[in-house]
Amino acid sequence: MELSIKPIGTIHSCYREKFGIPRQPGLVKSARGSIELLPPCDREEMFKELERFSHIWVQFLFHEAVPDGWRPTVRPPWLGGQKRVGLFASRTPHRPNFLGLSVVRYHGLRREKGSLYLDISEQDLLHGTPVFDLKPYVPYSDAVPDASSGFAHFSTRKVAVAFSREAEEKCRSYQEQTDRNLLALVTEILTQDPRPASQRASTREYGMLLWDVNIRWKANGEDFMVFAVEQQRE
Amino acid sequence: MELSIKPIGTIHSCYREKFGIPRQPGLVKSARGSIELLPPCDREEMFKELERFSHIWVQFLFHEAVPDGWRPTVRPPWLGGQKRVGLFASRTPHRPNFLGLSVVRYHGLRREKGSLYLDISEQDLLHGTPVFDLKPYVPYSDAVPDASSGFAHFSTRKVAVAFSREAEEKCRSYQEQTDRNLLALVTEILTQDPRPASQRASTREYGMLLWDVNIRWKANGEDFMVFAVEQQRE
Repeated sequence: MELSIKPIGTIHSCYREKFGIPRQPGLVKSARGSIELLPPCDREEMFKELERFSHIWVQFLFHEAVPDGWRPTVRPPWLGGQKRVGLFASRTPHRPNFLGLSVVRYHGLRREKGSLYLDISEQDLLHGTPVFDLKPYVPYSDAVPDASSGFAHFSTRKVAVAFSREAEEKCRSYQEQTDRNLLALVTEILTQDPRPASQRASTREYGMLLWDVNIRWKANGEDFMVFAVEQQRE
Repeated sequence: MELSIKPIGTIHSCYREKFGIPRQPGLVKSARGSIELLPPCDREEMFKELERFSHIWVQFLFHEAVPDGWRPTVRPPWLGGQKRVGLFASRTPHRPNFLGLSVVRYHGLRREKGSLYLDISEQDLLHGTPVFDLKPYVPYSDAVPDASSGFAHFSTRKVAVAFSREAEEKCRSYQEQTDRNLLALVTEILTQDPRPASQRASTREYGMLLWDVNIRWKANGEDFMVFAVEQQRE
């Protein structure tokens, strides 16, 4: 038995590539985005009273994982990338049906040039992600704070993040143009150290694309230094 | 763009019909079930280390809702079945793509007659439900206990449940045969009052099928009296 499903919307996100997307979405408060709703789901009445809820579930497709398929076991980052666990004991994108699940903060609906957008933040979704369902987050049944979790071993180490004077100025002028708080976003992402566990001692340069801006940084002892903020032409 | 997805498993559940399935799954501790894993997902290694987690997410199809389709607005039970809200502000099964999401307690894997089963409890899934994905519940990102929720208005009223002597004896003998604690299961389900909000004053008789047993009860003032427990031939 196969089922055919169809996207109800598409993600617009600050995350333009997989590298940099946080493993713990709630910590990156500045990660804004929106869901562009597609017909027949681009009608305000379908979201009536959603404003009662602070958070929503997004069920989506890990679309960039599809071409690579999946394997029965994976090496998750919370075990340092060494040990293998079953794919169903992980949240890897490389899984049968490639379905993803994230809780995000809800900021309301907006109609712009005829399209309906649902604004979100604290999200970890790649730009262009197809969305299959949205549901209100109901703490009564969805929040199980005393659930036990292999993820308890997660590192809580925070990296200090500094900016060169020029990089900081570029972030500020970008915010003036776009109202996007790039300084906060970059800081929140880098403080969690997006490097693979195997590269924790690396001193090489890294880059990541946020919106239309390429961010370049490198390790400086235990800390990170952001030395370039380069706006791309879209 | 359409996507074709395929079940990784099928639910075996005490719930044989929609009526009786609790709106707050976690409260019905005795609601046991299992997921029969289908090829190619019926391999133990795909679940290695899942025992680190107490709870898992089940992403499934509301298969009995598919024939009826969906409407843009619904009347959810938490508003007394009166007021209309957008379908995306509800957890109605009648939604585009008919995808469901439930957190359940995980009890381990079991191989029986060649098939691999994943045992669960505290579940609210209809027997025969197709499952599309399983994920570990990660409280770090999934538990948002301070999320605000329209469901705060949920009734916490509990109905007292009594059994006739004969009904109680039948429950006990069923448990001896099957190791299923029917007395606890019926009590936990009925204490939450499964009747539609519009029938809260009804004194008519109700029935529900749990496993292969038909349970019949009626209101007795503010309380419920279970007066018949009838095992069906399967």
